[in-house]
Amino acid sequence: MAGSGKAKRGIPPKSDLNAWYPAIVEIADLVDKRYPIKGMDVWKPYGWKAMTLIDGLTRSQMRRTGHEEYNFPLLVPEDLLDKENQLVSHLKASRDTGIDASELRVDEEEAGFKKEVYWVKHGGDTELEVPMFLRPTSETPMYTMFSLWVRSHADLPLKTFQIVNTFRYETKQTRSFIRVREIHFFEAHTVHADQDGATAQIAEDAEIVQRLLHELCFPAIVSKRPSWDTFPGAWHSTAVDAVMPNGRTLQVATYHHYRDQWARAFNLTYEDRNGETQFCHQTTFGMSERLLGAIVGMHGDDSGLIMPPSIAPIQVILMPVAAHSDENVIPRVEALASQLQDSGFRVQVDARDLRPGTKHYDWEIKGVPIRLEIGPRDLASSQCTITLRTGGKIESPLEGISSTIRQYLDSVSDELRSRAHAHASELIRTFPGLSQTADIWKLDAALEEGFVYELAFDGNDADAEVLEKATGLTLLGDCVQPYPEPIPCAVTGKLTTRRHHLARMY
Amino acid sequence: MAGSGKAKRGIPPKSDLNAWYPAIVEIADLVDKRYPIKGMDVWKPYGWKAMTLIDGLTRSQMRRTGHEEYNFPLLVPEDLLDKENQLVSHLKASRDTGIDASELRVDEEEAGFKKEVYWVKHGGDTELEVPMFLRPTSETPMYTMFSLWVRSHADLPLKTFQIVNTFRYETKQTRSFIRVREIHFFEAHTVHADQDGATAQIAEDAEIVQRLLHELCFPAIVSKRPSWDTFPGAWHSTAVDAVMPNGRTLQVATYHHYRDQWARAFNLTYEDRNGETQFCHQTTFGMSERLLGAIVGMHGDDSGLIMPPSIAPIQVILMPVAAHSDENVIPRVEALASQLQDSGFRVQVDARDLRPGTKHYDWEIKGVPIRLEIGPRDLASSQCTITLRTGGKIESPLEGISSTIRQYLDSVSDELRSRAHAHASELIRTFPGLSQTADIWKLDAALEEGFVYELAFDGNDADAEVLEKATGLTLLGDCVQPYPEPIPCAVTGKLTTRRHHLARMY
Repeated sequence: MAGSGKAKRGIPPKSDLNAWYPAIVEIADLVDKRYPIKGMDVWKPYGWKAMTLIDGLTRSQMRRTGHEEYNFPLLVPEDLLDKENQLVSHLKASRDTGIDASELRVDEEEAGFKKEVYWVKHGGDTELEVPMFLRPTSETPMYTMFSLWVRSHADLPLKTFQIVNTFRYETKQTRSFIRVREIHFFEAHTVHADQDGATAQIAEDAEIVQRLLHELCFPAIVSKRPSWDTFPGAWHSTAVDAVMPNGRTLQVATYHHYRDQWARAFNLTYEDRNGETQFCHQTTFGMSERLLGAIVGMHGDDSGLIMPPSIAPIQVILMPVAAHSDENVIPRVEALASQLQDSGFRVQVDARDLRPGTKHYDWEIKGVPIRLEIGPRDLASSQCTITLRTGGKIESPLEGISSTIRQYLDSVSDELRSRAHAHASELIRTFPGLSQTADIWKLDAALEEGFVYELAFDGNDADAEVLEKATGLTLLGDCVQPYPEPIPCAVTGKLTTRRHHLARMY
Repeated sequence: MAGSGKAKRGIPPKSDLNAWYPAIVEIADLVDKRYPIKGMDVWKPYGWKAMTLIDGLTRSQMRRTGHEEYNFPLLVPEDLLDKENQLVSHLKASRDTGIDASELRVDEEEAGFKKEVYWVKHGGDTELEVPMFLRPTSETPMYTMFSLWVRSHADLPLKTFQIVNTFRYETKQTRSFIRVREIHFFEAHTVHADQDGATAQIAEDAEIVQRLLHELCFPAIVSKRPSWDTFPGAWHSTAVDAVMPNGRTLQVATYHHYRDQWARAFNLTYEDRNGETQFCHQTTFGMSERLLGAIVGMHGDDSGLIMPPSIAPIQVILMPVAAHSDENVIPRVEALASQLQDSGFRVQVDARDLRPGTKHYDWEIKGVPIRLEIGPRDLASSQCTITLRTGGKIESPLEGISSTIRQYLDSVSDELRSRAHAHASELIRTFPGLSQTADIWKLDAALEEGFVYELAFDGNDADAEVLEKATGLTLLGDCVQPYPEPIPCAVTGKLTTRRHHLARMY
């Protein structure tokens, strides 16, 4: 039955991720991609609910850590960019004063940014005096206001966040949740009295990400990005990359330590306890709908999605069985649904007059973690049948059903975590090494496609370029988990504990 | 003490609403208007929290009535407007076929719409092939998708909503929440099999608005707008106007019955039970951040905001008193705060080392409904002091405090409702009448500024124009509460129960 359904609805096998992923996001009713602008999907209720549940997890982390939610305007006047230009000049000046050039942003990024935004130059028939752009991210509008808000040390730390739509004029191939032109975006921006305050914030961001990844049930590689891949104006950027089932990495979160670089551009200062004016130090932390993209890609299977219970729009689908033959079945199922709802679970009753196989199949596609069935025989014996989306079917007494469901949801989460960990580990291989003969670098063994390669690396920018050229892959940066013992750098041969990964990035 | 605070923070008297309103929205920290684009304010945490609590009330009404939440793209390609143009042509054609012209939209509105939107014509350096605009409202993008989604009678009714940012290139004077260029907007769009289905939806919308107004504690005038003020493409539009303290009305909600007019333009059809293709019937229902504007304007007083408990970001502010003299005070206040939080209240402890008067004053400005104080003597007698923002101070036992707080929050709501009702009634006066002498219409008595005038009216469009010209006010339309007995129409003298209002609208 499921087989015929599968054929009918046409889910490609997940091993063909490039076909499976774009198909499943529509078949499972997360989005509709037929909206007439490329890269701007319509969020359907099931997808939007999952996304807002992810936002809910983020919001509770923000509450726990004392961030407050703001909402800034979408449009940014072009002239505010002058401050960003000052930032670039400042960084150039720093370079002349001898600060390590690897910490500095190159000004082509500025031009690149202007190329990536949508411009609003007309209101009605009127050409606007100052063109505006749709925010790609909110440093410029926020820091303009921060410099009005922060006056003294008593105003610090300022810990803000917002969850908003951002825009990017994306010219590469678009993919639902992964590369889109209207982005559902989370951004936290904080202001501190000094570098240590900002450094502590970066540590807090790292912890928040780990808690979220635990709830979303997938692991990720956390790396301090190489200098050339650091966010404009940042001292350093840390990125969180999920390893998707095709071995490509997907950056799902980043946090940036700005030191006082942006503050100098935006004249963001405060009066310290001694009455002296000081520049603030800042951080940002960003995540997006890519988290949902990672969930889809990491947990799904040939039958459809598997939703982690923490963000499953429906955690338990209740199904009356053979309700025609016993009029007590449906009322009992409905009473049970109310009971579970009162216990805080997200539940739905599927009393549609369809073959059970068809109904099972629908909820498999949507990845509902638990299916709970009750038929006439179950009524007699006060039990039900529980089927887990991750596998397994259990007869369970109705007595104590809420704690039973809690346990099985936890076991679905555990199973997803262990699968995702196992899968990600399989996808990370040891780099075979490379050798130089007469100025030509060659790999010691061919790389297989679809894997991330791990290596010790302690070289400079030129060495990194050698690696990237020889492999056609990208260095993710210094992994926050170094090797326990020093091993030789793949390029220089120097002993180092610095762990790196080479990957094809989304 | 409060007096000196008032002078310092400079809240104008509320009787001068045009000075009080723009001052209080910033002093109470709802928004910051210094963002460098006129009519685009920054939502501060306190204001944003109040707004999202209003959204929460709206969402629970939507859930109760079976609407599902979507999220559509912000940008709309210009060529989708062709369908709106078809709608206009269709309406013109209808006119030729003899349908009452008062039901028809005039096509200047189309041009007006294009004048009111922000245009995106460039992505980076590239001129876009098809210009796009920022949605002012979402009929066009949504109905484009609806026509893909609706196939048969089994797909109906389709009840959708979204809460999103919309944009309007506003050339009039902007005011926080009331007239802004980026609008926090709620829009419900429904599709039905027939006119009766859509009519029932309009009745449901009316009921939802009444429930919301009850929770927000203010009354409103509900009127079927005159034909010339009907939404483009609508058969009829109903508007909900709050009477602000200066006698101007503020439209806070509208719902429109489209019959099949938009469906014809968007080719939105379904196959009925007999296999026949039928056009759908549609409705829309819109509300916005104006609800918060009305709350600010209706309930505030000379000391600041008064937040209705349903949307108060802080319902109870707890204040330790003389905590220096007894180390048990602060722990007791914190325990009480946890207890109230566990009971579902939104609470905060203000343990700042400031004079009580200064603290009281801060929370008065923010309109926190209840202040709860505990000092050393209260600890001994197991009681606390409760002060209501609407007036009144009570010594209350700590025993059973949760239900005490619930009662007092309800009494604050009741007091706000009764004040707002009384005030709105005072602001509605009976129209003095007007008489015609040799083709010239004159008012029988001068109108006082700052009032809404109620009258019986049963005239045609020309008669309405006479009224509006003679008074300089606008007719809100047919009030849904007619007069119990017929009285003479102010212009024609015909007996009628049709109640109208003349007002200056925001």
